[in-house]
Amino acid sequence: MTEPLNISSWTCPLPLQNYPTIVMGHGSGGKMMSDLIRHMFLPPMENEALTQLGDAAVLELDQRDPPTRVAFSTDSFVVNPLFFPGGDIGELAVYGTVNDLAMTGARPLFLSAGFILEEGLPMETLGELTTSFATAAEKANVQVVTGDTKVVNKGHGDGLYINTTGIGLIPPETAISPENARPGDAVIVSGMVGDHGMAIMSVREGLEFETQIVSDTSPLHELVETMLAASNEVHCLRDATRGGIAAALNELAKSSSVGIIFEEALIPIRPAVKAACEMLGMDPFYIANEGKLVAILKNEVAEDVLAAMHSHPLGQDAAIIGQVTADHPGLVLAKTGIGGSRVVDLPAGELLPRIC
Amino acid sequence: MTEPLNISSWTCPLPLQNYPTIVMGHGSGGKMMSDLIRHMFLPPMENEALTQLGDAAVLELDQRDPPTRVAFSTDSFVVNPLFFPGGDIGELAVYGTVNDLAMTGARPLFLSAGFILEEGLPMETLGELTTSFATAAEKANVQVVTGDTKVVNKGHGDGLYINTTGIGLIPPETAISPENARPGDAVIVSGMVGDHGMAIMSVREGLEFETQIVSDTSPLHELVETMLAASNEVHCLRDATRGGIAAALNELAKSSSVGIIFEEALIPIRPAVKAACEMLGMDPFYIANEGKLVAILKNEVAEDVLAAMHSHPLGQDAAIIGQVTADHPGLVLAKTGIGGSRVVDLPAGELLPRIC
Repeated sequence: MTEPLNISSWTCPLPLQNYPTIVMGHGSGGKMMSDLIRHMFLPPMENEALTQLGDAAVLELDQRDPPTRVAFSTDSFVVNPLFFPGGDIGELAVYGTVNDLAMTGARPLFLSAGFILEEGLPMETLGELTTSFATAAEKANVQVVTGDTKVVNKGHGDGLYINTTGIGLIPPETAISPENARPGDAVIVSGMVGDHGMAIMSVREGLEFETQIVSDTSPLHELVETMLAASNEVHCLRDATRGGIAAALNELAKSSSVGIIFEEALIPIRPAVKAACEMLGMDPFYIANEGKLVAILKNEVAEDVLAAMHSHPLGQDAAIIGQVTADHPGLVLAKTGIGGSRVVDLPAGELLPRIC
Repeated sequence: MTEPLNISSWTCPLPLQNYPTIVMGHGSGGKMMSDLIRHMFLPPMENEALTQLGDAAVLELDQRDPPTRVAFSTDSFVVNPLFFPGGDIGELAVYGTVNDLAMTGARPLFLSAGFILEEGLPMETLGELTTSFATAAEKANVQVVTGDTKVVNKGHGDGLYINTTGIGLIPPETAISPENARPGDAVIVSGMVGDHGMAIMSVREGLEFETQIVSDTSPLHELVETMLAASNEVHCLRDATRGGIAAALNELAKSSSVGIIFEEALIPIRPAVKAACEMLGMDPFYIANEGKLVAILKNEVAEDVLAAMHSHPLGQDAAIIGQVTADHPGLVLAKTGIGGSRVVDLPAGELLPRIC
């Protein structure tokens, strides 16, 4: 693979103007969403922090020496159903934003909570979810310091939607960015992929598997701390939520203008999730996670960081899955079991909407 | 009025448990919302910053000397209709959060944008609103640095909902808090009240008035800067949105444990808004504003600050409307034109829901 591949020949992107209205696929973490963001949201608001399109913005608040640097990230949660095997929207709303902050190397500190409640939501359900939200915040050691409550008419919501926005403090020495991947770097995934998406799908579609699949919803900031304590040569971190590890790796490849190759056989995956994916004809690399990250780091420190990850409950199944290459910048390839390789592109649209 | 009044004899509060489900009134900025927040959200999440219930949380980020202090505020916007006389949800979503930050004396710096889009929303409408959002951010001199996009199924939204969360930097010398009102302080309102609520109501209910009433949606941070440049004895600031100046004054009276008395005749109000209120039997003090604040400040500096406000386009109609008293703590009284006085309590519930 000495010549860069021509990406455009591999995909069939549908330009934004082909859609006169918003469709579900615009919210699924794939190419359609990426197009919407790049063509609709970025142009009128463009600035350096926004254009990085990281999990969280990295901001300098002042001109002190060193400047006070914070991570700032927002996420709205519209998952359906509100309760699912292994979690609920309250817990998810806390960990989702905590994880986005952690992907900059920040220590998550403060959260805001914006609740949009639908008229008719049982008070008891709200009580369960606010308790779950508060418990998750306590576990993740963040304070919920400001909030907002709106009520919309019956039929104009889905029980409730939660927006959680967070602030984290970035240590002066930390330099993690989606743009920092370098050829020769190793690629790590922190554990079993696809659990969250399959848990949602199983309950939403009424699928029954031999083993119940439960969401992996969990806060990753301690795992990240463990990794950064093992080495300061971690270059990129990405939360593998909507669009799965495929979307996460594609975004990093594009932001850093590098290629990524991984081996399919090295991706940790539960037999039940694998079986469910095969049954449904879905690719597990595209299935959402809510407690898994991908990391790109200097190859020489990869084994040390991996060992550190294995010592943490959320990193027990972490594995080195591939490497970064100067070939085919912007493109992610998977080596298949039979010796070939295939392009793992951003998913097009709605693999599974309303996953978070 | 030498004896403190017994507040409980004046109102008929309905406890939360009387509502087995969420109703529209829980989102209208009145007593029902206050109950929901105090009984549902605060207990599991309690911490010092949240308990202040200011427009924005005031946070110390580090242990430097002086510490880096930021204001942090979140607001979800669900206004119906999306476009209204004098503004739209995009602009409102920026100025609403900018204003909440400004009420701590902070300089608004960064915004996040969380869009929940309903399947079927015309791309053209989204384009208009993102442009409006971006233009408002530019006017308010804030950067939109991070965002999130979700899509919900047709019928499970209302075109779009926007969450805007913001960060502002608070100068070390600033000490504005809902708890700082002191007996003897003067009370100022920054301009004509009720424009936003009446603009929404007129279009929503198809009312026609002789003069079209337009929303006052505007960013107040410059007006606040002007006020603080005139004096550092401004004790409290409050954005008079849902629940109008009545809710804003009640919240300050309760947080500071003081009484407030104002003269009805001194409240600036447009003849068209006054006429519309009379026609509809509504009290203009309860109608939402989106570009008006109430300020409580040391009586000795009130005239100077007022003069400074008059020099700013958004403070031209500012007026001193009353004072803070040690009598009847937690209670707001209005002196009527005929020499009596009446209690101006928090509104109970849904005067006009989905106003912002």
